[in-house]
Amino acid sequence: MNENMLNDNLRIDGDRLNRRIARLAEIGAIDGGGCCRLALSDEDKAGRDLVCEWMVELGLDVAIDAIGNVVGTRAGRQAGPAVMAGSHIDTVRTGGAYDGNLGVLAGLEVIETLNEAGIETEYPLAVAFFTNEEGARFAPDMMGSLVFTGALALDEALRVKGIDGSIVAENLARVGYAGAAPIPASTPRAYVELHVEQGPVLDREGTEIGVVESVQGISWTEIEILGVSNHAGTTPMALRCDAGWVAGAIITFVRQLASDLGGNQVATVGRVEFFPNLVNVVPNRVLLTVDLRNTDESLLQRAEAALVEHLAGLCREEKVEISTRRLARFEPVVFNPQMVDRVEAHAQGQGLTTRRMPSGAGHDAQMLAAVCPSAMIFVPSVDGISHNVKEFTHPKHIEAGANVLLAVLCELAHADQPEGEHV
Amino acid sequence: MNENMLNDNLRIDGDRLNRRIARLAEIGAIDGGGCCRLALSDEDKAGRDLVCEWMVELGLDVAIDAIGNVVGTRAGRQAGPAVMAGSHIDTVRTGGAYDGNLGVLAGLEVIETLNEAGIETEYPLAVAFFTNEEGARFAPDMMGSLVFTGALALDEALRVKGIDGSIVAENLARVGYAGAAPIPASTPRAYVELHVEQGPVLDREGTEIGVVESVQGISWTEIEILGVSNHAGTTPMALRCDAGWVAGAIITFVRQLASDLGGNQVATVGRVEFFPNLVNVVPNRVLLTVDLRNTDESLLQRAEAALVEHLAGLCREEKVEISTRRLARFEPVVFNPQMVDRVEAHAQGQGLTTRRMPSGAGHDAQMLAAVCPSAMIFVPSVDGISHNVKEFTHPKHIEAGANVLLAVLCELAHADQPEGEHV
Repeated sequence: MNENMLNDNLRIDGDRLNRRIARLAEIGAIDGGGCCRLALSDEDKAGRDLVCEWMVELGLDVAIDAIGNVVGTRAGRQAGPAVMAGSHIDTVRTGGAYDGNLGVLAGLEVIETLNEAGIETEYPLAVAFFTNEEGARFAPDMMGSLVFTGALALDEALRVKGIDGSIVAENLARVGYAGAAPIPASTPRAYVELHVEQGPVLDREGTEIGVVESVQGISWTEIEILGVSNHAGTTPMALRCDAGWVAGAIITFVRQLASDLGGNQVATVGRVEFFPNLVNVVPNRVLLTVDLRNTDESLLQRAEAALVEHLAGLCREEKVEISTRRLARFEPVVFNPQMVDRVEAHAQGQGLTTRRMPSGAGHDAQMLAAVCPSAMIFVPSVDGISHNVKEFTHPKHIEAGANVLLAVLCELAHADQPEGEHV
Repeated sequence: MNENMLNDNLRIDGDRLNRRIARLAEIGAIDGGGCCRLALSDEDKAGRDLVCEWMVELGLDVAIDAIGNVVGTRAGRQAGPAVMAGSHIDTVRTGGAYDGNLGVLAGLEVIETLNEAGIETEYPLAVAFFTNEEGARFAPDMMGSLVFTGALALDEALRVKGIDGSIVAENLARVGYAGAAPIPASTPRAYVELHVEQGPVLDREGTEIGVVESVQGISWTEIEILGVSNHAGTTPMALRCDAGWVAGAIITFVRQLASDLGGNQVATVGRVEFFPNLVNVVPNRVLLTVDLRNTDESLLQRAEAALVEHLAGLCREEKVEISTRRLARFEPVVFNPQMVDRVEAHAQGQGLTTRRMPSGAGHDAQMLAAVCPSAMIFVPSVDGISHNVKEFTHPKHIEAGANVLLAVLCELAHADQPEGEHV
């Protein structure tokens, strides 16, 4: 008897899962089909209440910790750490129905599938949703999973003031999600997060499952260029100290840098401000940001060093002053290779097409990866549209991803075959 | 007897001229040493009143036309067209004391010098100041000289609504400068404008007099780039339609274009706006402006064509849409070569160092050049600073420029030597 094979014959109910996704998306619904459930807002509270209600209906033991993370646990034959599925249910201001929500609701769907099939697991299974993954109201993002894993002190997180001036601790109390479960939490046996890709790769190539090997490291730098403002007509090219030209040179360099490094290196200049920003005045000041990401820390450092060197050259060439300020820096996270293999094997075992890939966005899984074997499963996002009301994932892909989640969780939790089925 | 030699021995009073400049700069004075006398404002009226008072004191016959241009004329032995000096006394919002004012007040200084020396000219001499040269309140700039020369219809100019919503005609009436002199005016015999360079060339190389051969043609284009907004982390470089990168490529191309064309070609991207302008989002829209200038119309057209071709290539390469809108287009103006030679000969005859150069900025002289032999004399602007309260020209350069103006005007007007002097 091969357990894997047996579990691979079990299937979740895609319609039921998609109904739950649609039902949760009604809370905080906004024009165009999206959601606004900013962390610890009234809408977030209503979403939390609904998911907790579902957890109780499914027989889960619901625990809430002091940062508002919610963990619903299904007992196994053994006590001890649970195999955990999870994600988040807060959204950005113009969020979609899938980002985060999918991972949580697919976890509940796995539980309901096992309940219906009468399958008992060796180890407990848990479904978690972490507080404020998006960081759209309170910084940092991934706050709940940071505190859950001990990477951020609870009191520090509780003191955070949001964009509206209110404090995390007050909001937790207000919405009734300041719980008593221990922080940092006991370490899960393993963690698996199903998520929409938020990028175009799977959709473009028609691949059904993304097997996430890593989360890119992120390096954000703000660059200020100080040149000399001058008349665009009367100042010969050779006498210019043109902060705007330097900005252009940085933008094109950054693209070339990504091309030269290849692999998973991405590089973006997303924000640019010219001063005085007039058609006939050579700019004397430009502010811009460079977003560099790589799954390999040494390559990311190489990209950062190349940027610094290029800026120094531009200072000499154009006689401008350049200063830089680090806005964010996260090292890459590499997921446990056995966990990655498991995701790939189960997806392929279910006849799904797969692609190994990094995650370009941050996820709670990268925090969990620091404390337990972790993995992520990606499903396609149509046109890669993310953090947008137009975010969409086909129901068939939702179902496929949840079935992979089911199989991986069952294997990790040593699910037994129910009597009389699938000999 | 050599008239030129004689006139070259005559000298203006530099202190008196600089005092007039300082006195006029008191009207509309702003912090930092600059002036704000927007066209047809109360401050402009006060400045006009002062200059008209000086004109009357110097015995000039003051005529005001329907667009508010003021011409003070000193009779010659012959009636008929006058040899005219001129410029403007309106300023930008953060203007300096020299831009425009110098040309007008140096004209008055020439008159006073001739008056004191008892010199009569064969032809009349006139000093003019033209309405709204700067265009900082009403578009187009150089409005007064455009109407004066018949290049812009009076009623069209009178109907113009300013940035504050008020109308040119109403403002002319309000400040009392809607005069009765004919429009278009009778054509001057010749026109000479002394002006600060507004650029760094003379100051940097220590040259005292700029002999202006031409005014650059101007081509302003607004470019809108439409790409696709995407997550900076999750979108592979190859799948991007990055409006921001295209903007960077345009900025660097424009610099390269100026370098390739060489000569007097200048090219500037002064205004750039990114949307949505976030560190971690690939920009989906960028607005930018390209300012191309050349003294040679065919080269300017070549630059424009090269830009259009480059934009088409970028559209294909990055799969963006690019649209362009013409914001301004003036053909270059070449000054009468004999007039240019005169300026150079007189400056060198006075022992001054000279450089032939184009004007990168627009001036009333370029409008007058269409109707009569015209010339411009440039004096150095410290650090090339212009349209700024820090605009500064050394008194010695003011004096030198006014002496060249004196000599050129005297030659053009056939000044006789007064009895008993400089045999």
